[in-house]
Amino acid sequence: SLDKDAYDITVISPTNYFLFTPLLPSTTVGTLEMRSLVEPIRSVCRRKNARFLQCEAQELDLENKEIIAKDDQGRTYHQPYDRLIIAVGSQSMTFGVPGLEHCNKLKTITDARETRARVIDCFERASLPTTTPKEKEKLLSFVICGGGPTGVEFAAELYDFLVDDLPGYFPSISRDEVQVSIIQSGDHILNTYDKEISSYTEQHFSRSHINVITNHRVRAVAEDHIVYARKPTKDDPNPEEKILPFGMCMWTTGIAMTPFTKHLKEQLGGAQKNARALETDSRLRVAGVPDGSVYALGDCSTIMNPKLVRGIVEYFEEADTNHDGVLDHDEFAHLSQALIRRFPHTEMHLSKAGEIFRMYDKDGTGSIDLDEFRVLLSDIDQRSTTLPATAQVAAQQGKYLAKKLNTLAAHSLGMPGNAGDGGSVPYDEALARFHYSHLGSLAYVGGTAVADFGDGFLVKGLFGAKYLWRGVYWSEQVSFRTRALLALDWTKELLFGRDSSRF
Amino acid sequence: SLDKDAYDITVISPTNYFLFTPLLPSTTVGTLEMRSLVEPIRSVCRRKNARFLQCEAQELDLENKEIIAKDDQGRTYHQPYDRLIIAVGSQSMTFGVPGLEHCNKLKTITDARETRARVIDCFERASLPTTTPKEKEKLLSFVICGGGPTGVEFAAELYDFLVDDLPGYFPSISRDEVQVSIIQSGDHILNTYDKEISSYTEQHFSRSHINVITNHRVRAVAEDHIVYARKPTKDDPNPEEKILPFGMCMWTTGIAMTPFTKHLKEQLGGAQKNARALETDSRLRVAGVPDGSVYALGDCSTIMNPKLVRGIVEYFEEADTNHDGVLDHDEFAHLSQALIRRFPHTEMHLSKAGEIFRMYDKDGTGSIDLDEFRVLLSDIDQRSTTLPATAQVAAQQGKYLAKKLNTLAAHSLGMPGNAGDGGSVPYDEALARFHYSHLGSLAYVGGTAVADFGDGFLVKGLFGAKYLWRGVYWSEQVSFRTRALLALDWTKELLFGRDSSRF
Repeated sequence: SLDKDAYDITVISPTNYFLFTPLLPSTTVGTLEMRSLVEPIRSVCRRKNARFLQCEAQELDLENKEIIAKDDQGRTYHQPYDRLIIAVGSQSMTFGVPGLEHCNKLKTITDARETRARVIDCFERASLPTTTPKEKEKLLSFVICGGGPTGVEFAAELYDFLVDDLPGYFPSISRDEVQVSIIQSGDHILNTYDKEISSYTEQHFSRSHINVITNHRVRAVAEDHIVYARKPTKDDPNPEEKILPFGMCMWTTGIAMTPFTKHLKEQLGGAQKNARALETDSRLRVAGVPDGSVYALGDCSTIMNPKLVRGIVEYFEEADTNHDGVLDHDEFAHLSQALIRRFPHTEMHLSKAGEIFRMYDKDGTGSIDLDEFRVLLSDIDQRSTTLPATAQVAAQQGKYLAKKLNTLAAHSLGMPGNAGDGGSVPYDEALARFHYSHLGSLAYVGGTAVADFGDGFLVKGLFGAKYLWRGVYWSEQVSFRTRALLALDWTKELLFGRDSSRF
Repeated sequence: SLDKDAYDITVISPTNYFLFTPLLPSTTVGTLEMRSLVEPIRSVCRRKNARFLQCEAQELDLENKEIIAKDDQGRTYHQPYDRLIIAVGSQSMTFGVPGLEHCNKLKTITDARETRARVIDCFERASLPTTTPKEKEKLLSFVICGGGPTGVEFAAELYDFLVDDLPGYFPSISRDEVQVSIIQSGDHILNTYDKEISSYTEQHFSRSHINVITNHRVRAVAEDHIVYARKPTKDDPNPEEKILPFGMCMWTTGIAMTPFTKHLKEQLGGAQKNARALETDSRLRVAGVPDGSVYALGDCSTIMNPKLVRGIVEYFEEADTNHDGVLDHDEFAHLSQALIRRFPHTEMHLSKAGEIFRMYDKDGTGSIDLDEFRVLLSDIDQRSTTLPATAQVAAQQGKYLAKKLNTLAAHSLGMPGNAGDGGSVPYDEALARFHYSHLGSLAYVGGTAVADFGDGFLVKGLFGAKYLWRGVYWSEQVSFRTRALLALDWTKELLFGRDSSRF
């Protein structure tokens, strides 16, 4: 929604399409077409009179405000900018596990295509007369490393394929011969979701004969098996290693920096402390860039929440209007509102000021003293976790940034960056911080979906939850085009079943 | 349409889908989705209770009636058969031209995907600021070797893309900068079509700024240019070599045997004389297989028409009922009907017996003597060209064979092949020969289509011919599924334009 009259837009990307990754697991067994999740960047550019360069960003020249990009012939190109938005996404985390080249992944279209081909290959090979029973068992073992949304949804799609299409397409393979295993290092799968959701999913999977192996870590991946073991504990510091043969192994865990963000982080030195993503302030400006002209959003970035404890004296003195050294009920209520306005992420902790007041007035004096206030702020600081690396966050950040940039453009005669007056720092400061409103977490778990809309409002396995899940993603699509294509795909699947062609 | 109760069917193929190749050119610029041209073999097998093996046929053991197939691990498998149908298609002909690895082809899904990626790559690279004007000119030169239906339709799709989508997607490239050239060794493109059709297409292309270079041959292909020259003539036996740089080069010419058919041809020795395809009799039985249990159809086979001249004395004496040494009008009419019944391919030459009689009664005696009859039969033999390697022929052959095999099964108690009584030769002889009825030739030439329905009934560039073209192919699809998908694709293109994503 960036104003095309106010900005001259250039998009630099090594792929010329935008991929809606949350639905990628659905393409692996043919429920969705890959093309339906893809929006050509040039279609978007056409609407915005934007320029598109199929190049890969290599380096940032902060001095001259240029991005250095490389084309696929290896030639570099310097693109000057007034404002730069970094949205390069992330890579899979390896955790130092050897042999990940034997795993399939689900980050790109190529990954999805390879996964689909591999799944079909396993079934095709397993139904050949030349295949021994032992090989067949191995081929029909699907191992998923990581019990996050991607792993769970891939398991669910596999399960759907097994139930709906396997008997018709591969009559020589019975359901019992297929083994699907999820290896998860945490206590539960879907552990960023509400606990009830994750245990519902575990039960649903165990009924569907999907093995959920929690508290285990993958140690190594070989060509046709993984080595895994229970997480070391005090009682058992060297747990026994186990072997699980596979026909295909899916690696879905973790988020790591791309070479570009890694390089930028090093360039920015001490201002960047996070190992997994670029740190930004709550206005999405990359920390350490002096003129505030570089923004980052999506999986490649994380918002640093300021430590409230550091400003404790200032806040307390401002709030203590009658200067009696403690905060009474009204003073605290005012302070809460002021803090929420200033630090939107505190809303979930401070919105119910009355309750909070009673909770932290430990000595029951009817007022909060500085020590009690310190405990409260520390608790908030601790609970303010980083935002999840989801499409939902990235989409809201994109909208926030476009709106802000439009406002900045509308309120300045000429672009401050262009005028060489040190960028837009003072302007930007005047505008609102980014505030994430969590609309709920969704996951498709095979035949049904689970949803966690926050505040304990959960949806689990209701009839129709599958369509709710589809509906939410459907409404999030970039364009009417992808929305229509998705609707067509789902209709096709309903009418014709999945497509078992392998190419 | 093979009877699933009469036969136990096994399908052996290295790919697990059937590809409708005539529409493949449409996928190269995103008008059609590749998946829409594809029917999973397992869907067809499900309807027929057939078994599918994803293996590649290697060799035929005629003695033991076994097909030896190899899986993708290189292990071989022997599949016994009572009747074998060979439909392995063909390969591109190289004509000994060096450097064809630099060309794109259009035989398989992978070919089409690579072509699509290459086309988009050329445009993406051409619009980069790092690209020099000379490179841009090279990148935007598309060379098509071969002016048959595939080459022409690919040129037409490229043209559509240039007209409909280029300005919106690639604003930095103008239409004039794009050069499309077709190199054709013959006098005309589409030379298996009616002359009027091919000259209409040439005019249409020249108006569309597509260069048609006829009477030229490609001598060599390098990484980024072709070397070509005029066909040598008596006056100019060593024509000058010319160079044409390209961003992509499409090789569409010729049909050659696959390794499997080549091997089988050698095995069958003297019975097989054709260098490009397996020879069959007019009942589609592969020549040289003694028990007639091996059939071949489609591009991998060609029907040997018996030389009528060889039977001249027999036919003449049978027809000359009054034994006066010449054929009068009635005798000739009877003979014509008998010959048509026996050799269906003579129908187009003999159906108008009256005209033919007058034409070949050179001396005007009102009767045809043996010498005049010899001229007639030689003319027919010469004009009986082999059937074109088209989907239309293959589809009719498939229907013919299924119907025949059903009849054979219905009229035998137990399968003759199973009983070890020497196969079904006598049974098969009693049934009709294959008769090809040409329904017309179609080609899409950009914005419109050309059609040649035989007997001079031509359709050229009518408004709506494009939809006629689509309609005919649409009705030829294997299943309701592919038909629906095609309709959706065409609707999508109409609504949303083509998809420029490259993956």
